[in-house]
Amino acid sequence: MCQLLGMNCNVPTDICFSFTGFQARGGTTDVHADGWGIAFFEGRGYRLFLDPQPSCASPIAELVRHYPIRSKNVIAHIRKASQGVVDLENTHPFLREAWGRYWIFAHNGNLVDFSPPLDGSFLPVGNTDSERAFCWLLQSLRQRFADQLPGRDALFDAIHNLTLAISAHGEFNFLLSSGDSLFAHASTRLSYIIRRAPFTQAHLSDQDLTVDFSELTGPQDQVAVIATLPLTDNESWTTMPAGSLWCFEEGAPHQQRATRPGSPASPS
Amino acid sequence: MCQLLGMNCNVPTDICFSFTGFQARGGTTDVHADGWGIAFFEGRGYRLFLDPQPSCASPIAELVRHYPIRSKNVIAHIRKASQGVVDLENTHPFLREAWGRYWIFAHNGNLVDFSPPLDGSFLPVGNTDSERAFCWLLQSLRQRFADQLPGRDALFDAIHNLTLAISAHGEFNFLLSSGDSLFAHASTRLSYIIRRAPFTQAHLSDQDLTVDFSELTGPQDQVAVIATLPLTDNESWTTMPAGSLWCFEEGAPHQQRATRPGSPASPS
Repeated sequence: MCQLLGMNCNVPTDICFSFTGFQARGGTTDVHADGWGIAFFEGRGYRLFLDPQPSCASPIAELVRHYPIRSKNVIAHIRKASQGVVDLENTHPFLREAWGRYWIFAHNGNLVDFSPPLDGSFLPVGNTDSERAFCWLLQSLRQRFADQLPGRDALFDAIHNLTLAISAHGEFNFLLSSGDSLFAHASTRLSYIIRRAPFTQAHLSDQDLTVDFSELTGPQDQVAVIATLPLTDNESWTTMPAGSLWCFEEGAPHQQRATRPGSPASPS
Repeated sequence: MCQLLGMNCNVPTDICFSFTGFQARGGTTDVHADGWGIAFFEGRGYRLFLDPQPSCASPIAELVRHYPIRSKNVIAHIRKASQGVVDLENTHPFLREAWGRYWIFAHNGNLVDFSPPLDGSFLPVGNTDSERAFCWLLQSLRQRFADQLPGRDALFDAIHNLTLAISAHGEFNFLLSSGDSLFAHASTRLSYIIRRAPFTQAHLSDQDLTVDFSELTGPQDQVAVIATLPLTDNESWTTMPAGSLWCFEEGAPHQQRATRPGSPASPS
């Protein structure tokens, strides 16, 4: 199993504080020591840092923690391998290009007997269920929408549909973005918090570190942070119901929908 | 105009020494201050560091300089923008996946009136001639070889053919790799050196730094370093003739062929 961290904002924001707590889970406060990665969108461009080393001991993670890269969409992942060896090509997040946009994907869970036919348009380089799911998802979107990247709502409908199909094979928590919206699927476990004015202090669960967001933010700033488990111990995180797909935009949930029969798919 | 740096080896080798000299050209000893990037293959996986800041002032470049990532194929680029704004999405090297392998590409030069039809299988995200050329090159390879990644010699033939077509539009020095071979096109300006036993000392042209490779290498190691301009001032670099395509493998040139009528396409 793995852990996910995502951020979606209305202004480019650095993720140094959240990443500090998240990084500790990669071998210090938790067991996810089989590599880690983080991707930042900056406009249409991206930066992607991958390391098969535990994040708690990685010089690249130290750089990311101290170098404030400002981004509206971030996806990070620390890995506890379930399928695929511990190797760079199996390290999340994964990246592909479709419709002249970069797409970033990270997965937490385990898919069983998931070997859909792939037509070659997107092929896995490593041997994880996760990368296979990502390739099939993009292939299916491309088949459905051909040459035209759909609008947000049509895209949400399509991703919802494909998430239903993949989820039949097992646990499929994921984060996906092409730089505008951030799609998040709570298959079993995912939480989020929205930070907006009035900003307050936040204290990490995994390290004794406090930040006063009122000193760092503007009055209009709005930031959604999504994580497998809450990263702070003095804020109120929302548990996303098991079996719900979300679309975050401009730092807030824009849309959500159930992905299993009978799931409430509304914040508890 | 930009500068290119490539490395192809028979054993995973770090590029810290060469990168130290190359990095200085991004704003200190030369004018290529419109961003930089470096990609390392590690097995089938990759690490790609991109920064729109000048390399001489980039904390990420500092990390790369001091963190020995061992790789058999490396491609780096520092940019002096000719087409496309200075932005992350226009920063080389570019990455795509084809046939379940990552492909990395960087270009130095300027292509004029180069707008080939793109079928959507690989599309540029930014707006440089370079990324357009890379997408068209991969699209053309995919059209030619369909589902089957060709062997090295067939690939060399095809890349040679496509290089002829693109070179008709202007200066097209490039480095390209999918992790095994390193393809290098000297359109106007590219040099290489092979380091093998007996190893000696090398001194950078751009910084007062000497390394004794005999202390760092094994007797069987073989390393090809390819650069726009020689990086050391006490070694004998080979100038690659203008109009020659090369394939490096296991740290040595494996094949080369002329890309313009009458060009000698053999080392001078």
